[in-house]
Amino acid sequence: MRQWWTVPGPDGGISELRDVPVPQPGPGEVLVQVAGAGVNRGELILRPALRSDNPNAKPSPSGNEFAGRVAAVGAGVTGWREGDRVMGRGRACQADYTLTPAEALMAVPAGLSDEQAAAIPNVFVTAHDAIVTAAQAGQEDAVLITAGSSGVGTAAIQIARYLGCRDVVATTTSPAKAEALRALGATHVADTSADGWPAALTDAVGPVDAVIDQVGGRLFPGLLEAMALKGRYVSVGRNDGAHASIDLDLVARQRLHLIGVTFRTRTPAETLACSQRFAEDLLPAFGSGALRPVLDRAFPLDRLADAHAYMLGNSQLGKIVLMP
Amino acid sequence: MRQWWTVPGPDGGISELRDVPVPQPGPGEVLVQVAGAGVNRGELILRPALRSDNPNAKPSPSGNEFAGRVAAVGAGVTGWREGDRVMGRGRACQADYTLTPAEALMAVPAGLSDEQAAAIPNVFVTAHDAIVTAAQAGQEDAVLITAGSSGVGTAAIQIARYLGCRDVVATTTSPAKAEALRALGATHVADTSADGWPAALTDAVGPVDAVIDQVGGRLFPGLLEAMALKGRYVSVGRNDGAHASIDLDLVARQRLHLIGVTFRTRTPAETLACSQRFAEDLLPAFGSGALRPVLDRAFPLDRLADAHAYMLGNSQLGKIVLMP
Repeated sequence: MRQWWTVPGPDGGISELRDVPVPQPGPGEVLVQVAGAGVNRGELILRPALRSDNPNAKPSPSGNEFAGRVAAVGAGVTGWREGDRVMGRGRACQADYTLTPAEALMAVPAGLSDEQAAAIPNVFVTAHDAIVTAAQAGQEDAVLITAGSSGVGTAAIQIARYLGCRDVVATTTSPAKAEALRALGATHVADTSADGWPAALTDAVGPVDAVIDQVGGRLFPGLLEAMALKGRYVSVGRNDGAHASIDLDLVARQRLHLIGVTFRTRTPAETLACSQRFAEDLLPAFGSGALRPVLDRAFPLDRLADAHAYMLGNSQLGKIVLMP
Repeated sequence: MRQWWTVPGPDGGISELRDVPVPQPGPGEVLVQVAGAGVNRGELILRPALRSDNPNAKPSPSGNEFAGRVAAVGAGVTGWREGDRVMGRGRACQADYTLTPAEALMAVPAGLSDEQAAAIPNVFVTAHDAIVTAAQAGQEDAVLITAGSSGVGTAAIQIARYLGCRDVVATTTSPAKAEALRALGATHVADTSADGWPAALTDAVGPVDAVIDQVGGRLFPGLLEAMALKGRYVSVGRNDGAHASIDLDLVARQRLHLIGVTFRTRTPAETLACSQRFAEDLLPAFGSGALRPVLDRAFPLDRLADAHAYMLGNSQLGKIVLMP
């Protein structure tokens, strides 16, 4: 079968399509025939460190989410059988087949295609963890979501709307995307490329109670300025860089909580718990149509390089997936 | 009676001792004859903004903690009677008498002098709120307390020790104070004026789970570097300035929580709740001697200027109080 790997190269990691045997599921494992595998920005962010002259750089199979059909189950697996339509977060998912612990599987909600299902796990689990578990946003809250047109952004806007949050503010630097963000549930779209955007935003909708941030960097100080007393800021991504300046007196005066989240340092049990909380809270909402995966474009499995190049162009709205 | 005010001046606020009538307690209020009133760094920090040319600068009576005796009770007050020894957080406390809502009063633990009791409310309520309510520190945690010889620092070290925290690290830039900090309960004293102190600290005691910070500024990045996965950083004060640089990737990777606290923006009910939680959790520990106020020096009421000058010298260990 085909399986994408990221391998060290002279100028950073490169993707390599390998031909490997189809694995067999061990006890508690399920073999899934992949029908769609998400492409994620993290794959690109990790590349620069993967230089051949770095002794810690090791090749690894890529892809951390999938949708597909159960092809075989290992000993002791109950609840899943061959042919079931499943999706989940995993590893080595950009491939014809992937192995996963049975507990990590979720049933594909009725009415969704394979590529739509492949666009769900990462961004919706990440956004749910940030909005519900970390920021604890509720109906009384105005929620600000940066990089609103990203995969996590489009999921977060919908989740905030679904939770009934008082206001759902999405930021973008592409005003052309504003209408699409409103269609997803944003009640206000802020153009953060404009000077004085935090004051303009708080004039329009008041200070915000929760920020789900994928940008960081130069945007960070303005995000804190836009926050209400006891606001919760969650750092999910850092597309504009990790280094920022902080006004600790503002943090104290507003009694803010700043919360860092990532899956990189979570144990397998912690990661699994995130998926399970998402499934319990939100999976039914896909069946009713209240939530929907936002798929921008699907590429054939062997065109990962094109998918990455397309992602770097920043023109997409929602997810990019590979289809074996 | 005498009552200290902070009034706008050409170069910032100045202290002025006024002669005012002794107030009478209204319904639910208690008049306390002050026997000791704490002096706090906040009084000095707020001064630069109090310039005569600032239209928002208004005179206000100073002092926000007291110990003394009940002199009179207002209508509807139960539980307190004339002569009771009391202490608490309040306003206009640097005076011969102060008025306070009855709910804000705490009984002075047996065995403590007036000046010792006056050294308790602010720093112990602040430290309890930071360690217990904000950082939620427990026995499994290593707690780092910056500015260990300050009033809040000496209270925080004792509270962390009393809670049974695994390690209690105090920082100081005055190695001469290290022995006194160990006597209060510090298991390790870190000299933050040394290059590479975060690595030296984590080599010695491992990464820390909670930071109670009164320094901020240039110390902030090193504090985050010293923290463990899921660590909680609490910004209580900013003696080295509010502006700092932050590595948001470190915050995410370590899944840190950064929490701002202050009494400036708390409602009276929120402030009162902090004192009540402190009293419930910790007041009995003063009676048993497990906790003790750390009094550096008492000045007569009319020598507030000398008390402020002494505080600016940074040579004290613990609290400075005024005694009418």
